[in-house]
Amino acid sequence: MSEVLAVSKPGDWRATDPQNTLYVDLPAGRVVIELAPAFAPLHVENIKRLVREGYYDGLRIIRVQDNYVAQWADPDNRHPTASSGKSMPPEFERPLTANIPFSMLPDGDVYAPEVGFSGGLPAARDAKHGLMWLAHCYGMVGVGRDVNPGSGSGAEIYVVIGHSPRHLDRNVALVGRVLRGIELLSSLPRGTAAMGFYEKPQQPAAIMKVRLEADVAAAEREDLEVIRTDTQTFAALIESRRNRWDSWFAYRADRVELCNVPIAVRTAAAKAPSSKAP
Amino acid sequence: MSEVLAVSKPGDWRATDPQNTLYVDLPAGRVVIELAPAFAPLHVENIKRLVREGYYDGLRIIRVQDNYVAQWADPDNRHPTASSGKSMPPEFERPLTANIPFSMLPDGDVYAPEVGFSGGLPAARDAKHGLMWLAHCYGMVGVGRDVNPGSGSGAEIYVVIGHSPRHLDRNVALVGRVLRGIELLSSLPRGTAAMGFYEKPQQPAAIMKVRLEADVAAAEREDLEVIRTDTQTFAALIESRRNRWDSWFAYRADRVELCNVPIAVRTAAAKAPSSKAP
Repeated sequence: MSEVLAVSKPGDWRATDPQNTLYVDLPAGRVVIELAPAFAPLHVENIKRLVREGYYDGLRIIRVQDNYVAQWADPDNRHPTASSGKSMPPEFERPLTANIPFSMLPDGDVYAPEVGFSGGLPAARDAKHGLMWLAHCYGMVGVGRDVNPGSGSGAEIYVVIGHSPRHLDRNVALVGRVLRGIELLSSLPRGTAAMGFYEKPQQPAAIMKVRLEADVAAAEREDLEVIRTDTQTFAALIESRRNRWDSWFAYRADRVELCNVPIAVRTAAAKAPSSKAP
Repeated sequence: MSEVLAVSKPGDWRATDPQNTLYVDLPAGRVVIELAPAFAPLHVENIKRLVREGYYDGLRIIRVQDNYVAQWADPDNRHPTASSGKSMPPEFERPLTANIPFSMLPDGDVYAPEVGFSGGLPAARDAKHGLMWLAHCYGMVGVGRDVNPGSGSGAEIYVVIGHSPRHLDRNVALVGRVLRGIELLSSLPRGTAAMGFYEKPQQPAAIMKVRLEADVAAAEREDLEVIRTDTQTFAALIESRRNRWDSWFAYRADRVELCNVPIAVRTAAAKAPSSKAP
């Protein structure tokens, strides 16, 4: 994979969209999340309203369940804002339309008729029923809800930190993916109550501040770039994961599963060296 | 799943085998590993020799790579023992024989012709070629090796702490599974050098002591029981994961992937209540 990325061209990458990128600041550092308005536009809009209302600032991570999720919320609704009680319709799937990109993987999937990548996100589709949805891979970000499918507002957010819980697909609104800093969530102490909830507030688990990249001064931005998933370079990256050609491998799988394909992210500054002529 | 386990019978569970169970003591607590002599007998034998030689005592976890593995070793070979330099032949697959149990999952797999469970471990098989092997699910324990497939001794051990890296199947000797305490490994700080290696020794990552359960006084044993994977109860557990019947689920997958089936573990003391008549 590193060999594929080393010869990538500037056009194989895209900058994050400041209007759809979140900076989540924890005491230990920053988690950067790319939002997915193509799949959950109403949830994403409400999350952006919550960010600008300061709703998340000062909340805590209340749940870290091993091999599953890290989650933050205001469980007792002690600090409501104008948008924190607004429930969104269940954006769990979207219609399969011609204008949405999809780079299909060749090796099948246990859960869905077809899987692949759409706009830099792991996705699945069912052509027969004309539906498409995001897949619960490591690092994906979803909106917690109650039993009523239309009860999610974005006030409660979880991030997948374990083996892909694909049974959640089509059951919640996935709203984005962690681009950087997931290890700050995945290495948090696990909660000791049922379902990984913390029994008491944990020191390292405060959400200090959440901001939209667009609201951060240009000089302070992360300048991340994400690999485009509809290019020859990404197809080569997939091939490099299907068949590991380094000599360590005694057996080459000749196959790859959706959540085992890394969607590369880099700092934009890194593009300069790799675009120089040798 | 909890409903299935609540009505399980004593015969649905088996005690751990003291001759094939390891206690790995870290400063934060104990990791219990069940060894898999049916799949990697020579590696398991050598690991047991290393345990009894005290080889692992005082080693450190040297690598924690996010969404991948935690690994311990004596990288500079500063404390060799009689068995630490003994390389084992590559026990990456085993012949498919009639006497080895296999409970097959019905929903297919991206990597293998058939997947299921064998003796409480996630496994795959290829009937056409008469082969069977263990699968790299969360919590599985493997033996690190160099480029030479026959270079693993058990002196270097890794545990899967992320999405299942199934491309490693058939490339390393999987020697067991973590029954308890994986969160002590999965929540360790990630290493900041390439491939998650620690740049300097990390305080919480010492391996204080590793013992075989058989060498621990009876009063100090964990008394764990593992669910049998060849029973009607386990089949019911699989069904409960294929179709989540609680009302939260708006969409039921009707499918389950190998590494999403939990292999339940309990303390033997827990068996008394659940075997009482209601």
